[in-house]
Amino acid sequence: MLKILLLNGPNLNMLGKREPEIYGAGTLEQLEENVIKIGTKLGMEVVCIQSNYEGLLIDEIQQGEANGFQGILINPGALTHYSIALRDAIAGNALPVIEIHISNVHKREEFRSHSVTAPVTIGQIVGFGFYGYELALRAMKDYIQGRG
Amino acid sequence: MLKILLLNGPNLNMLGKREPEIYGAGTLEQLEENVIKIGTKLGMEVVCIQSNYEGLLIDEIQQGEANGFQGILINPGALTHYSIALRDAIAGNALPVIEIHISNVHKREEFRSHSVTAPVTIGQIVGFGFYGYELALRAMKDYIQGRG
Amino acid sequence: MLKILLLNGPNLNMLGKREPEIYGAGTLEQLEENVIKIGTKLGMEVVCIQSNYEGLLIDEIQQGEANGFQGILINPGALTHYSIALRDAIAGNALPVIEIHISNVHKREEFRSHSVTAPVTIGQIVGFGFYGYELALRAMKDYIQGRG
Amino acid sequence: MLKILLLNGPNLNMLGKREPEIYGAGTLEQLEENVIKIGTKLGMEVVCIQSNYEGLLIDEIQQGEANGFQGILINPGALTHYSIALRDAIAGNALPVIEIHISNVHKREEFRSHSVTAPVTIGQIVGFGFYGYELALRAMKDYIQGRG
Amino acid sequence: MLKILLLNGPNLNMLGKREPEIYGAGTLEQLEENVIKIGTKLGMEVVCIQSNYEGLLIDEIQQGEANGFQGILINPGALTHYSIALRDAIAGNALPVIEIHISNVHKREEFRSHSVTAPVTIGQIVGFGFYGYELALRAMKDYIQGRG
Amino acid sequence: MLKILLLNGPNLNMLGKREPEIYGAGTLEQLEENVIKIGTKLGMEVVCIQSNYEGLLIDEIQQGEANGFQGILINPGALTHYSIALRDAIAGNALPVIEIHISNVHKREEFRSHSVTAPVTIGQIVGFGFYGYELALRAMKDYIQGRG
Amino acid sequence: MLKILLLNGPNLNMLGKREPEIYGAGTLEQLEENVIKIGTKLGMEVVCIQSNYEGLLIDEIQQGEANGFQGILINPGALTHYSIALRDAIAGNALPVIEIHISNVHKREEFRSHSVTAPVTIGQIVGFGFYGYELALRAMKDYIQGRG
Amino acid sequence: MLKILLLNGPNLNMLGKREPEIYGAGTLEQLEENVIKIGTKLGMEVVCIQSNYEGLLIDEIQQGEANGFQGILINPGALTHYSIALRDAIAGNALPVIEIHISNVHKREEFRSHSVTAPVTIGQIVGFGFYGYELALRAMKDYIQGRG
Amino acid sequence: MLKILLLNGPNLNMLGKREPEIYGAGTLEQLEENVIKIGTKLGMEVVCIQSNYEGLLIDEIQQGEANGFQGILINPGALTHYSIALRDAIAGNALPVIEIHISNVHKREEFRSHSVTAPVTIGQIVGFGFYGYELALRAMKDYIQGRG
Amino acid sequence: MLKILLLNGPNLNMLGKREPEIYGAGTLEQLEENVIKIGTKLGMEVVCIQSNYEGLLIDEIQQGEANGFQGILINPGALTHYSIALRDAIAGNALPVIEIHISNVHKREEFRSHSVTAPVTIGQIVGFGFYGYELALRAMKDYIQGRG
Amino acid sequence: MLKILLLNGPNLNMLGKREPEIYGAGTLEQLEENVIKIGTKLGMEVVCIQSNYEGLLIDEIQQGEANGFQGILINPGALTHYSIALRDAIAGNALPVIEIHISNVHKREEFRSHSVTAPVTIGQIVGFGFYGYELALRAMKDYIQGRG
Amino acid sequence: MLKILLLNGPNLNMLGKREPEIYGAGTLEQLEENVIKIGTKLGMEVVCIQSNYEGLLIDEIQQGEANGFQGILINPGALTHYSIALRDAIAGNALPVIEIHISNVHKREEFRSHSVTAPVTIGQIVGFGFYGYELALRAMKDYIQGRG
Repeated sequence: MLKILLLNGPNLNMLGKREPEIYGAGTLEQLEENVIKIGTKLGMEVVCIQSNYEGLLIDEIQQGEANGFQGILINPGALTHYSIALRDAIAGNALPVIEIHISNVHKREEFRSHSVTAPVTIGQIVGFGFYGYELALRAMKDYIQGRG
Repeated sequence: MLKILLLNGPNLNMLGKREPEIYGAGTLEQLEENVIKIGTKLGMEVVCIQSNYEGLLIDEIQQGEANGFQGILINPGALTHYSIALRDAIAGNALPVIEIHISNVHKREEFRSHSVTAPVTIGQIVGFGFYGYELALRAMKDYIQGRG
Repeated sequence: MLKILLLNGPNLNMLGKREPEIYGAGTLEQLEENVIKIGTKLGMEVVCIQSNYEGLLIDEIQQGEANGFQGILINPGALTHYSIALRDAIAGNALPVIEIHISNVHKREEFRSHSVTAPVTIGQIVGFGFYGYELALRAMKDYIQGRG
Repeated sequence: MLKILLLNGPNLNMLGKREPEIYGAGTLEQLEENVIKIGTKLGMEVVCIQSNYEGLLIDEIQQGEANGFQGILINPGALTHYSIALRDAIAGNALPVIEIHISNVHKREEFRSHSVTAPVTIGQIVGFGFYGYELALRAMKDYIQGRG
Repeated sequence: MLKILLLNGPNLNMLGKREPEIYGAGTLEQLEENVIKIGTKLGMEVVCIQSNYEGLLIDEIQQGEANGFQGILINPGALTHYSIALRDAIAGNALPVIEIHISNVHKREEFRSHSVTAPVTIGQIVGFGFYGYELALRAMKDYIQGRG
Repeated sequence: MLKILLLNGPNLNMLGKREPEIYGAGTLEQLEENVIKIGTKLGMEVVCIQSNYEGLLIDEIQQGEANGFQGILINPGALTHYSIALRDAIAGNALPVIEIHISNVHKREEFRSHSVTAPVTIGQIVGFGFYGYELALRAMKDYIQGRG
Repeated sequence: MLKILLLNGPNLNMLGKREPEIYGAGTLEQLEENVIKIGTKLGMEVVCIQSNYEGLLIDEIQQGEANGFQGILINPGALTHYSIALRDAIAGNALPVIEIHISNVHKREEFRSHSVTAPVTIGQIVGFGFYGYELALRAMKDYIQGRG
Repeated sequence: MLKILLLNGPNLNMLGKREPEIYGAGTLEQLEENVIKIGTKLGMEVVCIQSNYEGLLIDEIQQGEANGFQGILINPGALTHYSIALRDAIAGNALPVIEIHISNVHKREEFRSHSVTAPVTIGQIVGFGFYGYELALRAMKDYIQGRG
Repeated sequence: MLKILLLNGPNLNMLGKREPEIYGAGTLEQLEENVIKIGTKLGMEVVCIQSNYEGLLIDEIQQGEANGFQGILINPGALTHYSIALRDAIAGNALPVIEIHISNVHKREEFRSHSVTAPVTIGQIVGFGFYGYELALRAMKDYIQGRG
Repeated sequence: MLKILLLNGPNLNMLGKREPEIYGAGTLEQLEENVIKIGTKLGMEVVCIQSNYEGLLIDEIQQGEANGFQGILINPGALTHYSIALRDAIAGNALPVIEIHISNVHKREEFRSHSVTAPVTIGQIVGFGFYGYELALRAMKDYIQGRG
Repeated sequence: MLKILLLNGPNLNMLGKREPEIYGAGTLEQLEENVIKIGTKLGMEVVCIQSNYEGLLIDEIQQGEANGFQGILINPGALTHYSIALRDAIAGNALPVIEIHISNVHKREEFRSHSVTAPVTIGQIVGFGFYGYELALRAMKDYIQGRG
Repeated sequence: MLKILLLNGPNLNMLGKREPEIYGAGTLEQLEENVIKIGTKLGMEVVCIQSNYEGLLIDEIQQGEANGFQGILINPGALTHYSIALRDAIAGNALPVIEIHISNVHKREEFRSHSVTAPVTIGQIVGFGFYGYELALRAMKDYIQGRG
């Protein structure tokens, strides 16, 4: 069974409370429960961590492989747009990483259409709300099995 | 049963022949067959069109609704980066549109990280090779059912 | 009697169906009928062509003089913003050309305020809806008679 | 009968004397006489003011409605390119405003192709010499009647 | 008793009439009356001048000291964004100057987030509506007394 | 009685020790004591937190409402210029936020004149030293009572 | 005997008629005849195609190898400056490609000095009028023989 | 005897009072007296006007020839950097114009090194304090006599 | 004996594991041991701290002097490129700071050639692998003794 | 017999030794010998000069006509990208000049795609290795005979 | 008697031969003779040097004081626009330096309006042809005597 | 014994005379003597060359290997910022090159923070005055021995 780490970055703990017209009405708890359930169905164990600290997210990415994970899904929140340190953590990590954004960032402020992390991930899934996490799980499974 | 239009833009007819280190070894025929098969499994009829002509792609998007489609998947190829006419066709069309890129465009030349079409689609799936088309089919189904 | 060519570019065949809050509720058919009627009143025969193909618009501009036209009205749609090939067709053509935009492009996305075709036309009429076509007819007549 | 204010900005009092290869040989007096005459024919009373002072033009725009006008035509001259104060006067004024340029500004120095006032007007008429003022009168009449 | 000059720049005479959703419903007369009243309470005599002329505002700043003022509050309106002449008048004047904006300029068009006058003032108070003027009065009093 | 959260960001714990020619000679302790005292006088209870961690500041903003606060004053320090995560925390938070800078940031390095947080606050108070915090308290009180 | 494809892009069918001060007095027919004749002398069969359609040019490049060609000469006209789709067709094609421009593009408008296609060709020949096509034929022959 | 107009723009009436470390200790009165005296010695009658109003400076330039002047010296102050209206007045005026700056503008803020008026003058004299006016008088005399 | 603080920023704990073709095969433990040993030889006590948290690095810099250090060596990792908060901590700290980069950042992505921290340090040592830390130790010793 | 000057700029004396994967394995001596031989065959005497000094190249261009040359071929090396002095020497020289680059500069670093010298030459030949010099000789002959 | 060095940079030896419509018909010899003669009249000995070598101009500036000069006039030609080495030579030299340009550089290509040397000179005299050198001599005399 | 070439570029012969507040009080002679002495101590023979000529520096780099050197230290002075020819000489040379700057270039004018030579060197040592040369010697020794 694949073991997958799901990282949600700054402000994603506010899902459901924060700007629902952009991010939807579901909460982080609902999101995580749902992802775990779908993971189980797809034969994947998903461990969920959210943090508002860039440093903690970097720590988790670095320790991902040692912690027994085989892939990382990450929604870096706003760190996507400036955290080169996060980018370097992804680039320097042995596991495949997939980037998720709940909203279509290209529809919003100009600065949100630029991602410093995207070039060091496998791919991005952008704009499909919570469903994007299921797509990312499937993409990760396909990717790992394709390499296996 | 959902009826979905799959549009592939310039040079995607060269899949398998053109730069396989970037786009993979599969051909457009294999891709389209595969998408149709998966579509059937997901309860969706997929019609596939490829063209090197910006004008033809615009025609197809405009006629999509009249032709009985309920959603459009598009890989605009290089038109993504400059065809504002394609963007306007998507924006002015009543059907939901999802953008797909086979390679991770953010890993390549600087100019490929900018998309003029992305802001008028629902979302993007980038970097997962042919599997991205399956993800897009699922995303479209989820999106249409979510609205239904 | 003056013979005038009216070219409408990509997506203008969607008038009335596409984003009426921007482009108004009238259709292309209504627009063309109206322009022809006003042309008649002003002593001008107007021939109307719409295409989503950059190449076809270039063909028509190049053949304009040989086809007996004395002036060209063009709403290049989104091609205005990037089609240097269209610009070159206008610049290399012997007939006077007037550029029309239905909406006030300066009120919209930043990229719509830049026109690559404007520098090689006589002038632009921007923001007056369908009425802009009548103004352009009048401007063309005035221009041709001023030169005559 | 419609009452229209025509504002001409800096240096337009030099028409006929200043760079006739760009602006033509007619003088401001001839222009204003002509506009008034055409206005009468179209059922519009036109009052003409020219000033080299940004402040005075702003004053006039602000007082336009109180002075009984129903629309404003303005050729802001070079203020078009930098006077955000003029822009704000137009935006904060209840009357419809149409922008006119005698020459095709897009054919000239790069900085002339950018207008800070255009986004807050109804539309622009650019490049048709004095005849552009007649077109603007017609456009204003059409606009006011369309709203009436 | 401190004597303070309050300068309001272009279009601020339109307060209450112009874009109330941005600037509020109060008029300039109400604003000035209110500022004078608060000034009295704070032991400051406030003289209020509004002008749409850059030149007049510069004149007043230059003569501020000779006219017996000990500080200047200024809302330069749109001149903030381009009037280097106003900037130089402020920089070359011996009195302390505080810049006020009624609306939060950083929430609006990109060009409004840049101020050419801010670097030569003591500080800015931005986004608090009419109440910003009271804050500026207090800041000026604190500043002058801190130097006294 | 209003309950207000005062957040000071990175390096503001160095006040009085760090670059006094820019930030003044007072320490953070003095600043906080003073703000609390003035708050009391104005009928506001102020709770003061300083941190060098972006993540901690985001945590506090998110929990502000649940912690019983009715408004937030923030001096984000250098995070102002790049922390889009902080911006999102402010934007996604239900309480009104006011931004304070001790020095006139527009007088210093070019990069300090750009704020990514300003667009999602009510307003900014810039350049008045410690006194700016008192002004911000007053502005917050006025704002909350205006809404009440 | 080498078989070479010569592609001329938009507006090159207007040679001799369009802006002869820039492009010279010869027509496309004369150019093609001449190139064929010189080709024969150099032991190369040249097939000439001109089109105003980006899509058709892409089609021809893609089919070049299957059509028995061993090299492609292309004057992309204005597409040089923006058609990334054409660039991708060249890059994804197995045959060597040489880019030709009749005029010295670096002497003209700023935007003409940038080529999106040049990086994926072997080399460019710019500014030598029709004679540049002969040079390109020779360069192609030398290149193919050097690899042979 | 040549009759020359000397125009000094915004803030130059503050000479001697304003930033003497940049502009020197002499006053405008001293400057004008001195220029008149030197003019007399060089056989030139100099009339001096200073204004803080862009509009007035434009008026004077426009009327220069009718007022009997044969040349204009201008120190546009800060208007140099943005007043395209002033530029157009100079360009549209029949008299030769020379631009003077007291300080070396290239040593100061970045924005001061760009002049919108310089391209339409004969030449510039920059950085020589009041003595630059004498140099400009001599340059004007030489220029007029060279044409005479 | 000099007491020196060595700070390593985000991802430097991955040395030896992360991208060895860029950063070399040595681990952070080896680096720190080695620096301590060389420090001893040079008469300097070196205390080593690594963190992925911007906040923690700022804390350490601020407390450096109180903790008895006389100089700080820092490899800020990716924070070099955007952490203005780190820059301010360095600028506001009384100890001399030297910046080290293991790889030649100028050889890599464009964004790595810009450092926001460099202007507030004494100097930089870039590109010499682990040996750069020894050079930095020597430079610090020379600097402190030069001031002593 | 035509007499042609061939100038090779900085670092071209390192041909064959320097980066052969970019510039090929031939030496400057071989290049010059070959060009002279081909020149003879084409009825042209070629004199070859190489220098690492911008000043010497300028001297030679200036003296080209006096030295009896009828045309100049130049590979300016890296000076192409910044030497405006070289550009001015070419522009101010009566002989026709053709620019050659051995490698396809558009395939390399971004800064190599911009040439300050190209706008003042007749044309460029880019990317054909040593063979480009033969093409340039032919182009020069054709150009001179076309003018003769 | 003052001893002044006059340096003319690249291509100024071509005066009279090179682009006379820009630089006039006089030769360098005539210019130098004339400057020496005027120098004598003004009580200044002028020594004239021209070179196409940046290095030689730097040498001369560095040795200016040791060679007994009291001031330097320089027309750096095109080096003005990019030679930071020349700028540093001027900045590091004890003598006052005045920059001269024969043509009005602001009327020409965009890149000519930027000078890297201007910020380290006393002032510039631009656009007055050869007469600019006389003005510079006078300015230098005035400057030296003002300091004397 | 290692043989090392030390190149100092334009204006470094003015050390001690030129801007000592930036470059220190030591002369080039003292610098070179010191470097030679330290070299001897480290088992390295250092040969020192200074020149104001870009061409001569390129010559020396090219001949470095043939002249028996095993490494090159270079302080390119201002050429660092624009001399792509120097960059190409370094890149095309077989010896390792280290770049030194005496002052911290990142603390000075914006344009000094960009180096065109840095990407083709091993590393840079910036801001340590003359001591930086000793560090560079050590770095070179370490580098050569690491490869040996």
